Amino acid sequence: MHVRPAKLISSMVKGIVLAAALFPTRALCQQPTQHQQILQLVDQMAAHFSATSKTIWEYAELGYQEEKSSALLQRELQTAGFRVQAAVADEPTAFVATYGQGEPVVGILGEFDALPGLSQATTPDRNPVAADAPGHGCGHNLLGSGAALAAVALKEYMERNHIMGTLRYYGTPAEEGGDGKVYMIRAGLFRDVDVILHWHPADENAVFNGGMLAINSARFLFHGVAAHAALAPERGRSALDAVMLMGNGIEFLREHIPNNSRIHYIITNGGAAPNVVPDTAELYLYARHPFSAVLGGIWDRILKIGQGAALMTETTLDVREVGGDVNVLPNDALAKVAQRNLEEVGGFRYTPGERHFAEDLLKSLPAGGAGELDSTGIVQPLRRPDPNAAAASTDVGDISWNVPTIGFRTATFVPGVVPHTWQAAASSGMTIGQKGMIVAARALAATAADLFLDRQLVREAKADFRRQLEAKTYQSVIPAGQKPPLNYRKK
Amino acid sequence: MHVRPAKLISSMVKGIVLAAALFPTRALCQQPTQHQQILQLVDQMAAHFSATSKTIWEYAELGYQEEKSSALLQRELQTAGFRVQAAVADEPTAFVATYGQGEPVVGILGEFDALPGLSQATTPDRNPVAADAPGHGCGHNLLGSGAALAAVALKEYMERNHIMGTLRYYGTPAEEGGDGKVYMIRAGLFRDVDVILHWHPADENAVFNGGMLAINSARFLFHGVAAHAALAPERGRSALDAVMLMGNGIEFLREHIPNNSRIHYIITNGGAAPNVVPDTAELYLYARHPFSAVLGGIWDRILKIGQGAALMTETTLDVREVGGDVNVLPNDALAKVAQRNLEEVGGFRYTPGERHFAEDLLKSLPAGGAGELDSTGIVQPLRRPDPNAAAASTDVGDISWNVPTIGFRTATFVPGVVPHTWQAAASSGMTIGQKGMIVAARALAATAADLFLDRQLVREAKADFRRQLEAKTYQSVIPAGQKPPLNYRKK
Amino acid sequence: MHVRPAKLISSMVKGIVLAAALFPTRALCQQPTQHQQILQLVDQMAAHFSATSKTIWEYAELGYQEEKSSALLQRELQTAGFRVQAAVADEPTAFVATYGQGEPVVGILGEFDALPGLSQATTPDRNPVAADAPGHGCGHNLLGSGAALAAVALKEYMERNHIMGTLRYYGTPAEEGGDGKVYMIRAGLFRDVDVILHWHPADENAVFNGGMLAINSARFLFHGVAAHAALAPERGRSALDAVMLMGNGIEFLREHIPNNSRIHYIITNGGAAPNVVPDTAELYLYARHPFSAVLGGIWDRILKIGQGAALMTETTLDVREVGGDVNVLPNDALAKVAQRNLEEVGGFRYTPGERHFAEDLLKSLPAGGAGELDSTGIVQPLRRPDPNAAAASTDVGDISWNVPTIGFRTATFVPGVVPHTWQAAASSGMTIGQKGMIVAARALAATAADLFLDRQLVREAKADFRRQLEAKTYQSVIPAGQKPPLNYRKK
Amino acid sequence: MHVRPAKLISSMVKGIVLAAALFPTRALCQQPTQHQQILQLVDQMAAHFSATSKTIWEYAELGYQEEKSSALLQRELQTAGFRVQAAVADEPTAFVATYGQGEPVVGILGEFDALPGLSQATTPDRNPVAADAPGHGCGHNLLGSGAALAAVALKEYMERNHIMGTLRYYGTPAEEGGDGKVYMIRAGLFRDVDVILHWHPADENAVFNGGMLAINSARFLFHGVAAHAALAPERGRSALDAVMLMGNGIEFLREHIPNNSRIHYIITNGGAAPNVVPDTAELYLYARHPFSAVLGGIWDRILKIGQGAALMTETTLDVREVGGDVNVLPNDALAKVAQRNLEEVGGFRYTPGERHFAEDLLKSLPAGGAGELDSTGIVQPLRRPDPNAAAASTDVGDISWNVPTIGFRTATFVPGVVPHTWQAAASSGMTIGQKGMIVAARALAATAADLFLDRQLVREAKADFRRQLEAKTYQSVIPAGQKPPLNYRKK
Repeated sequence: MHVRPAKLISSMVKGIVLAAALFPTRALCQQPTQHQQILQLVDQMAAHFSATSKTIWEYAELGYQEEKSSALLQRELQTAGFRVQAAVADEPTAFVATYGQGEPVVGILGEFDALPGLSQATTPDRNPVAADAPGHGCGHNLLGSGAALAAVALKEYMERNHIMGTLRYYGTPAEEGGDGKVYMIRAGLFRDVDVILHWHPADENAVFNGGMLAINSARFLFHGVAAHAALAPERGRSALDAVMLMGNGIEFLREHIPNNSRIHYIITNGGAAPNVVPDTAELYLYARHPFSAVLGGIWDRILKIGQGAALMTETTLDVREVGGDVNVLPNDALAKVAQRNLEEVGGFRYTPGERHFAEDLLKSLPAGGAGELDSTGIVQPLRRPDPNAAAASTDVGDISWNVPTIGFRTATFVPGVVPHTWQAAASSGMTIGQKGMIVAARALAATAADLFLDRQLVREAKADFRRQLEAKTYQSVIPAGQKPPLNYRKK
Repeated sequence: MHVRPAKLISSMVKGIVLAAALFPTRALCQQPTQHQQILQLVDQMAAHFSATSKTIWEYAELGYQEEKSSALLQRELQTAGFRVQAAVADEPTAFVATYGQGEPVVGILGEFDALPGLSQATTPDRNPVAADAPGHGCGHNLLGSGAALAAVALKEYMERNHIMGTLRYYGTPAEEGGDGKVYMIRAGLFRDVDVILHWHPADENAVFNGGMLAINSARFLFHGVAAHAALAPERGRSALDAVMLMGNGIEFLREHIPNNSRIHYIITNGGAAPNVVPDTAELYLYARHPFSAVLGGIWDRILKIGQGAALMTETTLDVREVGGDVNVLPNDALAKVAQRNLEEVGGFRYTPGERHFAEDLLKSLPAGGAGELDSTGIVQPLRRPDPNAAAASTDVGDISWNVPTIGFRTATFVPGVVPHTWQAAASSGMTIGQKGMIVAARALAATAADLFLDRQLVREAKADFRRQLEAKTYQSVIPAGQKPPLNYRKK
Repeated sequence: MHVRPAKLISSMVKGIVLAAALFPTRALCQQPTQHQQILQLVDQMAAHFSATSKTIWEYAELGYQEEKSSALLQRELQTAGFRVQAAVADEPTAFVATYGQGEPVVGILGEFDALPGLSQATTPDRNPVAADAPGHGCGHNLLGSGAALAAVALKEYMERNHIMGTLRYYGTPAEEGGDGKVYMIRAGLFRDVDVILHWHPADENAVFNGGMLAINSARFLFHGVAAHAALAPERGRSALDAVMLMGNGIEFLREHIPNNSRIHYIITNGGAAPNVVPDTAELYLYARHPFSAVLGGIWDRILKIGQGAALMTETTLDVREVGGDVNVLPNDALAKVAQRNLEEVGGFRYTPGERHFAEDLLKSLPAGGAGELDSTGIVQPLRRPDPNAAAASTDVGDISWNVPTIGFRTATFVPGVVPHTWQAAASSGMTIGQKGMIVAARALAATAADLFLDRQLVREAKADFRRQLEAKTYQSVIPAGQKPPLNYRKK
Repeated sequence: MHVRPAKLISSMVKGIVLAAALFPTRALCQQPTQHQQILQLVDQMAAHFSATSKTIWEYAELGYQEEKSSALLQRELQTAGFRVQAAVADEPTAFVATYGQGEPVVGILGEFDALPGLSQATTPDRNPVAADAPGHGCGHNLLGSGAALAAVALKEYMERNHIMGTLRYYGTPAEEGGDGKVYMIRAGLFRDVDVILHWHPADENAVFNGGMLAINSARFLFHGVAAHAALAPERGRSALDAVMLMGNGIEFLREHIPNNSRIHYIITNGGAAPNVVPDTAELYLYARHPFSAVLGGIWDRILKIGQGAALMTETTLDVREVGGDVNVLPNDALAKVAQRNLEEVGGFRYTPGERHFAEDLLKSLPAGGAGELDSTGIVQPLRRPDPNAAAASTDVGDISWNVPTIGFRTATFVPGVVPHTWQAAASSGMTIGQKGMIVAARALAATAADLFLDRQLVREAKADFRRQLEAKTYQSVIPAGQKPPLNYRKK
């Protein structure tokens, strides 16, 4: 279904009323600031893109399979007047939507992939919509929709105010382990970008100025010799034995690598039938560290462990589907602007109903896990990346080594809820998550507006970017020429 | 489709011609003996049931999913005049086909399930018909068809000669790990049987007088606590860790259990995504020993290892789908008759084409694995069960602790080929396997004929049965009340 | 040999000359301050106690076996006029030396135990004095002697200035894993102490204001059943298997405990002969974390892993010689005074010969390990305990939960050298280490002098102590009633 | 002390009386046979050598440390008139004692080493003479003394009857893991021997015609990098981790090697201190199989596992002190003679006191372990080597691939008692063991007498020897040029 612009605006007008109902304090009590117009535009479109986020939440499509989600976002952007280039970088669900022209070029990143097994209704207790089905446990339904909300509002703002410059929305698939952005970088899609803005769902409102963990991943596929496990086990060479011994080797490695490393693996092929010595078996492993250089050293040792396991078992090893993201570089120049804007935007409060839901949900967390509900109303002070902080990984890291990059984290999850949980999936499918999404969209839009209006900011961002990169070279562990692992979620 | 008797006979007559073509030596040079008539009947129907075996080979259905295979055999038996009771013992593909009445009651066992991943064309090199598809690597297509051949010939023989007694064909599903016969025993289907005859494809012609390995099996499903493996691995309790440690524990057990034990396992659930601490993981394990009593002791220790792994990892353990077969008790009284008849029946020779194929096939075996091709022409001397011999397991074991039982092994596989290999699957889909099947059918038919004609044999079989059971009690590891694991091949 | 006071003073006078030769800058250029007298006293006795430190370095006695080292220090203190109470707290080498009376009671801690296997000559390359012999790889020869230097100088200072108060030197054995101080606490020896001062050799000059890792330790002794490993391995129950599986279990635990934890173990009994299934085997394990409360949770899980290993192997587990220290509580009131005094005392410089030695020694460190040699001349700014910093453990921790405690770390080791290495042992046996020791003695003496002279400092120290302890309870993992493990170094 | 011949004979005469007291049935009721004289000579000297066996039992010296035991046996043989060549083959406790000259050359093997940790009084319950001290748990005190008894009696017999030929007693040290005989073979000491006779303590009377397990052994010493395990575990490369992973690798290997293999290991160096990452660690491993050729293949895989463990842990591997014995070849020609003689010699009965002791002792065995006490009175029928039988290893194997060899096993241990247990040590220090020893000496002496008197027997032995060796080549795993591991029991 195509929606005509007129109809969209009409639907947006209705949206204003809805937004007023949903977020009364927000919409009505906004203090007049330099960002008043752009923030009002965001607010007017907020209900519409909240609905979009809910639709994508219901789609819950896995990495590189986000056909409906990607199509929906493309449609929204196209309808709003963006030029859409679909299926870029050999990724069927990747796209670039562009508005305007000339410098500066400011991009906003959108993600929309779900996670396996995290299907969850919007209830405060574990309650899958469908058994073993995917769910938006990382809130990427909000991420992609909130980024689109900011982009569409910005486009309207630029048009109304005749602002020069190019605004891009990057539809980036398969953030969860598929490294979608890395292939998009390799396809040259970020070559002319001046600044990249992004955000990610979280349980707090904060500027996201670098950090995260560099990550490498691969499938370790062992090949042995099958044999009847009762009749002639001595004829077999067990690929599963190799997987087991590689796993053991990894466990023994943990003590002897730097602090703040992470290694985790699953067994994706553990043999076909108990009475057959497995001739293939596979272990799928991620390794992470706050710094890419350190991770490189750990990765070499992991490869040796795989080879040692093969040697021990007279099997052979095939390291497949190597993936990876580098850590996220900070940009202190952009961070200053972002912090100022986020503080201007402020947080939000739960309605009594939301608060009740949140309190119920927190009961499901482990002891000590619950956060402070009122913290959704505040903005955290600006922080430097802390290598000792708990962190995940993102292919935004690779962007940040190629383009000056700054982001936000907003309180879409009930405080205390961590990503990749059913609690996060529940929060992401309701107004609790949508309110956080709107905070992010407002902060993104205000910051992009600043960048379009003040060229000095862009220059400072670039200077800081060069400083951060000093004595470092961007290097992805993904082998040159490797195609996107479009089937990585199909095993 | 129903086939009318007239048509069947007509097709059998054609079969005779075909059999004459396929097995000229066999059909034409048969020396006249007391078994002449029954053996001729088998030969006349041999081509027809060879075709049946080929059809089932093409169906290649897994345990408890043998819908077409079971239906085909039921149809054959019904058409030939048997009364068929379908879907017995809560097993949709189990059936009992009966002819005649009164004593003695002689049963012949039929199996027809295939093995996962062993799809293979009738070529002397690895060549799956369909990738990852099931195949008849244990020759059960021959087993069920050969048993049916014997049964249908016997029915004709009994009818022609007005022989009293009850002849049964037991359609027993899911021999490969599904323990189909155990549930049929529990349903009382063997309660009135005097003697059970059976056979199994092999690479030699021999009486199968007991032996094999008692087997226990179960799924060890561990439950832990999921957590984001990068953000908060310390909050997780890994079910995969429990699986790994259980595996390790099993390996350490191997040294300290009696010789000739076998334990083998696969990992059927090794986690869902590398970045999530797995909250469920599963290990599927078989344990075997020549003697059920010894196996019981080993099984207790395996359970402890599972519990220890749970204790070590703060996970919980659910032992599911417990299965098992006891070892096969010998019956020396029946073995004597069976040996005499098998020697009367004799072996067979390959045609030059078959020999050429067999020689090519043997090249794919590991060094020292090839057998002597001429050995298909001879019958092995009668052996006692040897606990040190390589062996597999069968739910015929459970039959043998409940009814006097004797069997045959015939050279359906090229000598040197072991069951559960693609080489066995190839042999089972062509005349090489069919010739072995006919040897088995002839031996079964001759032996059943003896039992119907000589009540003293039955009495001696029962006396020996009581002797073998002395100081032993039949006990299956399968919990009382457990239903057949109809989905065991669906994971 | 008893040394008469007159003789000691005489030897001290000689010492002054030597000190002047060794530390000319130090002794001659000291700026006049309020601490002038006490610092001069330390300097006068510095050469004598440097010689003492060298003698103890040569003794190199292991924990609870420090008979000669303890006796030497007792003799020095007694000769200087302290009252010595020997063999306290059921520890033959523990002692308390007291001077003066009344309040305040200020204690200085002395340690003097060596480490196994670290025998090393004072050469810049690996060169054991005796193969496999103990060595002072943690510099406790300096620690005990430097503390005695401070104590003897203080006594002279108090006497000359008629200062009231009680000065104690605590001779505390077996710091390295023997928890000597814990038993001394239990014996009530610290009950009346107002403030405890201590120091530890390091590669920098800094105030030691809390931190370190809480530690628990134990021997996990498994009992199985012996059997001939070739004739009847199935009769054996291997205690070594239990040790191996416990080790494996520990490795799998590492991923799922909080950051900054440490677990390390050795196998102290791995079986007697390969052809006998081991009926006993033992694993000796340490676990650590910056916070005692977190460590308690980890310890419970380690115990479960031991129990799981026993369950898996049908062995029994005896957890023996449980030991442990809590982390070191900071005392910010005392830290302020200590920092001021250490800055007054200042660092020191290497002579050209020492510098040459240090440069040679640094070549033996791993890449990136070498420190800045000039850093011995500076004092680090005051730091708060950092749970992410690399750290070891000490039974000073237990003191710090019972008495307000502050310490120093001084640059006795060539910068970059870490404790428990042969490089540390080499540094500790020469002027490089002795110079650092004198810095410590000066800082200790000045701080103790302040405490004796200013009662307000003591009150503030106690107030801060109560604040730090809020909502915490001192609890040692060592079972009540357990005797000191006097033989822990004899295995 | 030197004993003059006259005195020896005198002591032997006294011995006769003692023997008559000890073994009345034996000494008095002997039926007159062709072996009457030689058997009487054995009986006359039996008490004397029983005392010798008790003295060596008390010495209980470990392999290559059997100084007193070897000296005592040398003295006995020298006193009796043998020429003794001491300290042969670079083994201080090895010797060759020779009597006579010319052909045939018949050798008798003597062993005399004890086992660590098996010190045990002659009581029916566990009761070490000294804690952790060695004991004769394999009865080699009887072995060496019984062989000497046969040799001395034979010398007297040859002298009296002017029998030509050379009689040798080989004093072979360190049978228990030291491979003493292999180095003696390499030194050429067996080059001119026609037939070797031997015996071994057991719990039955039988001809020992080949069998046993070929064995390979080695120490796997790993080298890593030490580091403080709390301060900088990431700098360490743990040799203990390598040992643990090698152990794990071995456990996973067990499933995939031929039946009747044995692998067992201990950890001889598991690290020095828990807080130091171990830079050395060692695993000491034996592998066995009934056939040397199969063992060779297993050994290659064990080496790979060691290499894999080194690769996994960034450590290096040093395979040290490689040892090994081949399996014992049968000699059917000699076995026939040996069986006839053993049957002539017969068994023996316990006195009521011995029987009471034996019954008490049997209570300490595991359920089902007790044997039939009357079985000491019978001789087992001649058996072929059974690869499925429980078995140990012996360096007699290496002899048997170089010289026609036959042996005996006699009931020195209470039936049901297995070697390498305290029960075996108890049995070996008392009349129960000595009676078995005398049976062995009688059988050895009678068989040697036959060989000296009948050259045809020797020719047949050699012919059978050549037949057994067909298509086989003697190959020891011990590297050429390696010296005897004289310190192997000192670790």
